[in-house]
Amino acid sequence: MTELRVIAYRPDRSEYAWTFGGAAPVTKIRPGDVLELWTDDCFTSLVRSVEDLASEKIVFPFLNPQTGPFYVEGAEPGDTLAIHFISIEPSRDWGVSTTFPLFGALTSTTRTVTLQDPLPEIVWVYEVDRERRTVRYEARRGDHIVELPLEPMHGTVGVAPPNLEVRSPLVPDSHGGNLDTPEMRVGTTCYLGVNVEGALFSIGDGHYRQGEGETCGVAVEGAMDTVLVIDLIKGRPTPWPRLEDDTYLMSAGSARPLEDAFRIAHGDLVSWLVEEFGMDKLDAYQLITQISETPIANVCDPNYTVVAKVPKRYLPGDRVYDNVRAGLREIAAAYRRERGLPV
Amino acid sequence: MTELRVIAYRPDRSEYAWTFGGAAPVTKIRPGDVLELWTDDCFTSLVRSVEDLASEKIVFPFLNPQTGPFYVEGAEPGDTLAIHFISIEPSRDWGVSTTFPLFGALTSTTRTVTLQDPLPEIVWVYEVDRERRTVRYEARRGDHIVELPLEPMHGTVGVAPPNLEVRSPLVPDSHGGNLDTPEMRVGTTCYLGVNVEGALFSIGDGHYRQGEGETCGVAVEGAMDTVLVIDLIKGRPTPWPRLEDDTYLMSAGSARPLEDAFRIAHGDLVSWLVEEFGMDKLDAYQLITQISETPIANVCDPNYTVVAKVPKRYLPGDRVYDNVRAGLREIAAAYRRERGLPV
Amino acid sequence: MTELRVIAYRPDRSEYAWTFGGAAPVTKIRPGDVLELWTDDCFTSLVRSVEDLASEKIVFPFLNPQTGPFYVEGAEPGDTLAIHFISIEPSRDWGVSTTFPLFGALTSTTRTVTLQDPLPEIVWVYEVDRERRTVRYEARRGDHIVELPLEPMHGTVGVAPPNLEVRSPLVPDSHGGNLDTPEMRVGTTCYLGVNVEGALFSIGDGHYRQGEGETCGVAVEGAMDTVLVIDLIKGRPTPWPRLEDDTYLMSAGSARPLEDAFRIAHGDLVSWLVEEFGMDKLDAYQLITQISETPIANVCDPNYTVVAKVPKRYLPGDRVYDNVRAGLREIAAAYRRERGLPV
Amino acid sequence: MTELRVIAYRPDRSEYAWTFGGAAPVTKIRPGDVLELWTDDCFTSLVRSVEDLASEKIVFPFLNPQTGPFYVEGAEPGDTLAIHFISIEPSRDWGVSTTFPLFGALTSTTRTVTLQDPLPEIVWVYEVDRERRTVRYEARRGDHIVELPLEPMHGTVGVAPPNLEVRSPLVPDSHGGNLDTPEMRVGTTCYLGVNVEGALFSIGDGHYRQGEGETCGVAVEGAMDTVLVIDLIKGRPTPWPRLEDDTYLMSAGSARPLEDAFRIAHGDLVSWLVEEFGMDKLDAYQLITQISETPIANVCDPNYTVVAKVPKRYLPGDRVYDNVRAGLREIAAAYRRERGLPV
Repeated sequence: MTELRVIAYRPDRSEYAWTFGGAAPVTKIRPGDVLELWTDDCFTSLVRSVEDLASEKIVFPFLNPQTGPFYVEGAEPGDTLAIHFISIEPSRDWGVSTTFPLFGALTSTTRTVTLQDPLPEIVWVYEVDRERRTVRYEARRGDHIVELPLEPMHGTVGVAPPNLEVRSPLVPDSHGGNLDTPEMRVGTTCYLGVNVEGALFSIGDGHYRQGEGETCGVAVEGAMDTVLVIDLIKGRPTPWPRLEDDTYLMSAGSARPLEDAFRIAHGDLVSWLVEEFGMDKLDAYQLITQISETPIANVCDPNYTVVAKVPKRYLPGDRVYDNVRAGLREIAAAYRRERGLPV
Repeated sequence: MTELRVIAYRPDRSEYAWTFGGAAPVTKIRPGDVLELWTDDCFTSLVRSVEDLASEKIVFPFLNPQTGPFYVEGAEPGDTLAIHFISIEPSRDWGVSTTFPLFGALTSTTRTVTLQDPLPEIVWVYEVDRERRTVRYEARRGDHIVELPLEPMHGTVGVAPPNLEVRSPLVPDSHGGNLDTPEMRVGTTCYLGVNVEGALFSIGDGHYRQGEGETCGVAVEGAMDTVLVIDLIKGRPTPWPRLEDDTYLMSAGSARPLEDAFRIAHGDLVSWLVEEFGMDKLDAYQLITQISETPIANVCDPNYTVVAKVPKRYLPGDRVYDNVRAGLREIAAAYRRERGLPV
Repeated sequence: MTELRVIAYRPDRSEYAWTFGGAAPVTKIRPGDVLELWTDDCFTSLVRSVEDLASEKIVFPFLNPQTGPFYVEGAEPGDTLAIHFISIEPSRDWGVSTTFPLFGALTSTTRTVTLQDPLPEIVWVYEVDRERRTVRYEARRGDHIVELPLEPMHGTVGVAPPNLEVRSPLVPDSHGGNLDTPEMRVGTTCYLGVNVEGALFSIGDGHYRQGEGETCGVAVEGAMDTVLVIDLIKGRPTPWPRLEDDTYLMSAGSARPLEDAFRIAHGDLVSWLVEEFGMDKLDAYQLITQISETPIANVCDPNYTVVAKVPKRYLPGDRVYDNVRAGLREIAAAYRRERGLPV
Repeated sequence: MTELRVIAYRPDRSEYAWTFGGAAPVTKIRPGDVLELWTDDCFTSLVRSVEDLASEKIVFPFLNPQTGPFYVEGAEPGDTLAIHFISIEPSRDWGVSTTFPLFGALTSTTRTVTLQDPLPEIVWVYEVDRERRTVRYEARRGDHIVELPLEPMHGTVGVAPPNLEVRSPLVPDSHGGNLDTPEMRVGTTCYLGVNVEGALFSIGDGHYRQGEGETCGVAVEGAMDTVLVIDLIKGRPTPWPRLEDDTYLMSAGSARPLEDAFRIAHGDLVSWLVEEFGMDKLDAYQLITQISETPIANVCDPNYTVVAKVPKRYLPGDRVYDNVRAGLREIAAAYRRERGLPV
């Protein structure tokens, strides 16, 4: 029998973390602990109607608040943290999106500088229907209305970065952070390399749904009730964020230009197959060439993110990291049973 | 009743086209014609075993031969060509892949120049099992063997380019060409803007399957028996290759760096929704942000390709280009009935 | 004694070449021939005042006309063409520049797509003072007026490209073309690899001056009277455009993203030092690291161009390509003496 | 009369700063203070001979130590720090360079991932001749020896970054940092926007010389004796590092891909001319297009850096930031007179 150790934490506004690294831990946890968390939306709940412009409501850098960090006992540089998502549910019946001046893929930015005027700042509010599992898109300058599937996920999941750095929660990199991939959903296990003692895991930026690439830079943003379980893999480093679900092994590369994100993700998949299954490097390269699926995660953040996925059924084996995921799924199942949720 | 006009064409080696643009048409066709074509593999059948190194067998630039070009009667600059795929079937029971010196995503190249030695050149031969619809991967330096689904497609589909240019069949750009997207499969309709009189459509580079990104630069390459039907949309330009299947509208952007391919594809989707459904530009941008799927097509060719896809069920309508696709599907169904194929 | 063979050629408008490759030669020339040429400006003289908008005057693709191509007798693939500039002089007393919609470094473009409105199209006309060797900048929306040094050069110098391709004169690549580097000036020798029989050399796009990067996409454009002498280096290939003047060896890389242009140019310099002086590859890499100067040429064309320069005085020798430049300088001196120009 | 306030500071090894931001100030200084500093080389003096491999000697992240940070009294976010270089002199008679695995422009890296083997790690030691003002290059695998001009500069100059971040000293960005531009030399004034109270200025990474681009990733590295004077410009923000010398105004953009660094630098020059001289944005764009010089600074660091320069003599005026530089040059002259240095 798995005995559940459950820690519930809902931060006050004054307790939000505004960085990965550099923030004091809110509490210590142990491997195997289940965390019941609440995360605010990326706008700290200040954009609630089409009248609320983020550029007016937000005082920089107080954007994309994180819940955490959590100090994981025993975690040291060279270890890997495994985070398994048990439940990710909207904590509100509305979400919000917006264009934001000089942010997004189809606008000039503070880096891709042009002399053109910024795009107008427009807000879209989405009604959430939890019964029907939908969010409702409503055009601002036309009459198109459509219900889209509710597909909750976290844009931002990470640990303290390496090299003594402290990074904004807007940044995705090797420490995770603002990856903005729809793969960070219920049932996924995320593996992150530990860079500092205690790992200092934080999470935020709930998305009720997003397309691949998060094109305008802003998903259907919303506060989230999230349950996850954490484990620690001692003595095994993980260079870039890796994900696993029932079907796929995945690696998330973050860099600019976007082809480097692609190269990181696929190069890391090659390394992973070599590590786990003893494949030859070029044999792994060939196999991945024919089987990978490669959704773009974001083309708006300070680094762009590409996720490379390979179906486990085509690999020499389907167990990685000594099958730590099996134990995490067991805990998840136990938790869901206990809470009366469908397993 | 649709009366079928069927043209069968299998080029001699001397009849291969080595460019888009600049090659004399092999024949004239009319809108509505069904073409039964054979395309050679990208190595002109010279790489048949693990002993056959492409770098030794191929004399540049005689790589990636195209079947065509076909002169489409009535096609003029400013029109759009619609190509609908009725059948794409391996014409052999083997396919082949290889690393190729200074080509591929995880190696330095003639553009991403480094001083390192090139990767070794290794060939993988895939057995095709048409009954089971599989291709068989077999490691060269290990013992992993696995059957992968046969998913035939064409890497290269295009017309003569604009601006008086003649391009290598290795290049993807606004004229189509070497897009290397798995979306170019049976049931897909491809829309290409016409740049010269007669359009000069060609096709080649059959892939028995490939992953997204074609990471090592070479899919499971193979000769193909392909049936398609062509139509012409007069007076309607198409700036970048667009694709449609039962579920999705898609646009394929090709450029370097990869984020520009992303921008082109999503920008073109915005334009398409504005054109077809009168949506406001920013409303379309928002909707696409939440619903697009964005597989990478290639990160190896002279331009990299991103495909942006939106499910038609979330759009204000599901008919584009005046529903030309309906007529093409009818012809496809008639052809398949006549040939005794499942419709 | 050098006997001068001089060929003068001024194309009619109907004789302009609109591509590199694919155009019939206007005449044959022999190695050692001096060419006295006239080149029209990139707008074919249609933008002459601040009222003349290029977007209205120009019918695509009739932009950037080239004078040529010239068939060089004896030139074959694998050879190198050497072009030495004897004189480049404005043929008019005015030049012109402009912003151009969706073209230039500080605007979104047809590839770096954004949803913003294009920048306004504004024309600047520059008076040329040949006595004082200046062009006069005059603000359009302010009162700043300043004389800038006249520094004439050619933006576009090239041969037919490889791989059976035909390229727009807006494109810089391994065949030369629209490099847009101020290094293409009097006294410079340009080395270009020959890709087709006769090489098919063309030239155009005179600039009365430009900054490094040609930021807005348009230099001080003007028609030019240019004298050059051509030579042929048999059996010696040149992979990317190389330049030489009294002080520097240079290589011009063209690609996107810009770092690939940098990599090409510096990688080619490494190769050049290895070829000419037998240096070890890594020793050359180190030396270049400490001595190269690296002006950006253009960040506006279909490929971006970086020029990497190394002072000859720091190299193991100062003669390259068997000192072909010495002979070209002799012919240039003889020509200038004969014409009464300062030598 | 300028009264000189001089502060001398030479850090112990235990006092090095390993980040921009996040490090406690070593002392407080006032605007107008002259600092006499010693900076260690980027390898903390551990690479001293061709036997000393950096990959073996260095324990990450203890690379590129900084002298500082200095808390500037009165400095607040929204102000600008002006740093004027009075003297930069080698403190040793040797410098060192090396290839470093997966670092540099002509190798794959941890971001531009390939499956190739890394380049060999080779060290070059340079003798410094202070009399003749040279450093001596000596090939490791050949016999080429050449003296190159001693041109001392600082690769790394910066303040604490914005957004609560702490960055590695290997990173160049809007806060300065590892710009690696040869323009950071004696006589140059560097303007940096202040992001935190006290600004927290640090400096390091002396280069006895480097080429533009720092191609292999490592200049002629050396410890340095440096004298500089600091001033504060209240209430005037500076978005990106700007430099000024007797001839030029310059802006340094840092980003990937390299074209974004170009865009940032030129876009910031446009803004600067608009701010200082009231020029129209497009008039400034045009002028810069024709007069800018654009050396690449680095193509090896986490962000690449481009410097855009415009000669002051072509601008509407030659005084910027209310001519703060005049006062700094006066202090520099007074200091040099007092020390018996040539003024």
